[in-house]
Amino acid sequence: MVDTPKQLHLNAFLMGVGHHEAAWRHPRTDAARVHSAAHFQELGRIAERGRLDSVFFADGLAVGPRIKHNAQAVFEPVTLLSAIAAATEHVGLIATASTTYSDPYSLARKFTSLDHISGGRAGWNIVTSAGADEAANFGLADRPLHRDRYARAQEFLEVALALWDSWEEGALTLDVESGVYADPNRVHTLEHESEHFRVRGPLNSPRSPQGRPLLVQAGSSEDGKEFAARYAEAVFTAQRTLDQGRAFYRDLKGRLGRYGRAEHELKVLPGIVPFIADTEAEAKELEQSFTDLISPEYSLRQLSTMLGVDLTAHALDAPLPPLPPLDAIEGNKSRYALVKDLASSESLTVRQLIGKLGGGRGHRTFAGTPEQVADELTTWFAEGAADGFNIMPPYLPGGLDDFVDRVVPILQDRGLFRREYTASTLRGHYGLDDVGNRFAQGTAHRAG
Amino acid sequence: MVDTPKQLHLNAFLMGVGHHEAAWRHPRTDAARVHSAAHFQELGRIAERGRLDSVFFADGLAVGPRIKHNAQAVFEPVTLLSAIAAATEHVGLIATASTTYSDPYSLARKFTSLDHISGGRAGWNIVTSAGADEAANFGLADRPLHRDRYARAQEFLEVALALWDSWEEGALTLDVESGVYADPNRVHTLEHESEHFRVRGPLNSPRSPQGRPLLVQAGSSEDGKEFAARYAEAVFTAQRTLDQGRAFYRDLKGRLGRYGRAEHELKVLPGIVPFIADTEAEAKELEQSFTDLISPEYSLRQLSTMLGVDLTAHALDAPLPPLPPLDAIEGNKSRYALVKDLASSESLTVRQLIGKLGGGRGHRTFAGTPEQVADELTTWFAEGAADGFNIMPPYLPGGLDDFVDRVVPILQDRGLFRREYTASTLRGHYGLDDVGNRFAQGTAHRAG
Repeated sequence: MVDTPKQLHLNAFLMGVGHHEAAWRHPRTDAARVHSAAHFQELGRIAERGRLDSVFFADGLAVGPRIKHNAQAVFEPVTLLSAIAAATEHVGLIATASTTYSDPYSLARKFTSLDHISGGRAGWNIVTSAGADEAANFGLADRPLHRDRYARAQEFLEVALALWDSWEEGALTLDVESGVYADPNRVHTLEHESEHFRVRGPLNSPRSPQGRPLLVQAGSSEDGKEFAARYAEAVFTAQRTLDQGRAFYRDLKGRLGRYGRAEHELKVLPGIVPFIADTEAEAKELEQSFTDLISPEYSLRQLSTMLGVDLTAHALDAPLPPLPPLDAIEGNKSRYALVKDLASSESLTVRQLIGKLGGGRGHRTFAGTPEQVADELTTWFAEGAADGFNIMPPYLPGGLDDFVDRVVPILQDRGLFRREYTASTLRGHYGLDDVGNRFAQGTAHRAG
Repeated sequence: MVDTPKQLHLNAFLMGVGHHEAAWRHPRTDAARVHSAAHFQELGRIAERGRLDSVFFADGLAVGPRIKHNAQAVFEPVTLLSAIAAATEHVGLIATASTTYSDPYSLARKFTSLDHISGGRAGWNIVTSAGADEAANFGLADRPLHRDRYARAQEFLEVALALWDSWEEGALTLDVESGVYADPNRVHTLEHESEHFRVRGPLNSPRSPQGRPLLVQAGSSEDGKEFAARYAEAVFTAQRTLDQGRAFYRDLKGRLGRYGRAEHELKVLPGIVPFIADTEAEAKELEQSFTDLISPEYSLRQLSTMLGVDLTAHALDAPLPPLPPLDAIEGNKSRYALVKDLASSESLTVRQLIGKLGGGRGHRTFAGTPEQVADELTTWFAEGAADGFNIMPPYLPGGLDDFVDRVVPILQDRGLFRREYTASTLRGHYGLDDVGNRFAQGTAHRAG
């Protein structure tokens, strides 16, 4: 018997008509699709055709300052994924939701609902909502401090995890004969009390097929990495170079031990924005045709938001002005550090930086043939920088079609990626064990 | 040209495998369907086959004390309706959500999302969450007072309505040539500040097909009726007799004037639980076969919750003990009043009361032939007690099949109900005008 080589994992990060900031203006897209649920259902089906592990939506709870040139959010992710669930059978469905501006009871229930609806395909990308504009929509004068957001997030997870355990497997007995609908001995209150939350429970939904959603995280700050090491089962990350990718991978995997977790329990998926064409030259031309459509005005606003410095009156062909130290950033620390490093390590002007960021807001872009894209992914995977990849098509649906129809078969031929789904749940796709249940274990213990 | 007679409206109130509390034990149902999204998608398609205006889900944010014998909630309603949206084309989709345990920004966005996904079919049944068990899941030692819940609800509506107006029609320009994605002059902040809420806006979603969800309400207390008169476009209500129905109808319609609203702007839909069979005797036998499956233990718990008095040790064949006055009730006041009145006006024992309430928790049950059911509805409609009906099938899907296939055609033959959908939105089905936009009106004024 031949050993199956280690398999990589692929997530399709879906955003409007593409990740490139000018995608909606490009002839390869139809901008009106940004508010079409059918568009996103089609994307779900394309991902499934490619046997991808999952699709994923980012989210923010404010429009932001970029409305004139790009405002991606139309749909609330769980609502949209529920419609995609109805149009697909296998692909995982990962939604972003905030611990800062949600209640654990409602959030836990929403994801349990998606998991029931999809037959065990729900995932939660946990964010703490860094934006000051988000805070202003929820009654706060300013965003909570970075460390306070993570402190709340940790308490939030403890409540949510307990709620997801509050119904044991099989507690919904539905015993027609005896008239016992559910077994009260297998449905548990929490009586949780902590600094931010007081929640009695149980959840108002029986245990879902996966028990709880797959837990995903994408912050790469110190707080973020520690949080990921503790809770996350998949991490989306922006890594520009193989060396940086490897360092991040080792860093994150190295933290798992202190939470009693093994390395395979957390999958690291760096993002990549692939421009794919028959030749490398054509792929680079394709990328350039997108870059040419970038609006500097939009990009300056976006960059200003990312860096926390107003650049809107800054000269495009000058280098970046001095930036504040990382410690002073209360927003998205990891993205800030990445952009600052990119600009200084390559001595970029603002215009050049804008071009580099246009594809995927700091995520690595790569233009090449299907073979070259597959080689890139294979190298990162083989060199210990990735367990898989967060595929961010620059334009949609075409960019996802190309990845699925031209790159995936190469990865399959190399024995690195599944040809058919072998599991029925999102956890199964990612090669993760079933989750236990603290209460069921308790019962087993008492019974023994 | 012959005048079209006034048309009635029909909503299908969906709950588990039926409204009868013992439905899940009855041979006509398959209990496992309570956690099947496909079941609810099928119900949506049946409602659509009958050209019904809408389907609707109630909701509560706690399991309640009834878990051993019945616990209906599995799915969060908006998530489930999104999956139903994907399986239907016309039928309206009404979800219950709480103003007490939601944020207006997230709630407004969730319903806008459902409205986008469904092409303009979203409706919101506004509840204030009366349960003490719900309060305990959201950090409160006890439920907020009735009047405080309604005060918050009113502020909540003002915020939500402003958020729904924050994007004018057409503000999402998607002008590929000029690169203008959205017109900032047609996207508005609110800077709302009131006792409970401070929300800057705008909403992070462009205006949806209906502008906002249809607003539905179901509380019949004084506060509830006044709230409905101010905001609601459809009201679900439990009325036991034609006289009571007529009085409620007149009462509610009479309140509209003080909010500058016309009578046709609010549709009153009393609930009815129809047992349908070829003969009246068979229909009554069918009803009895459900009543026979009621568990007194379950019913006593449910009744205790409804009345705020512990009856679990009370003799089944004795009359109800003295009940507290209405003023002392901080839960669901209107349901309390209805049950108290039912028990005293008909001098019922607890066992008899339980039987009467088993079908629809206080809603009117009716057993008869399709013709008799149609006659009942026609009478209430003609006599000024209803603009339409909230159909609560005692078992599902069979009870909805029977209503759609056997009662609806009679109503159609009488010219009282549409044979085909004539509108594309839920508001259109209910014969309501398009909503305006406070900001667009402002712009028009400035332009003139």
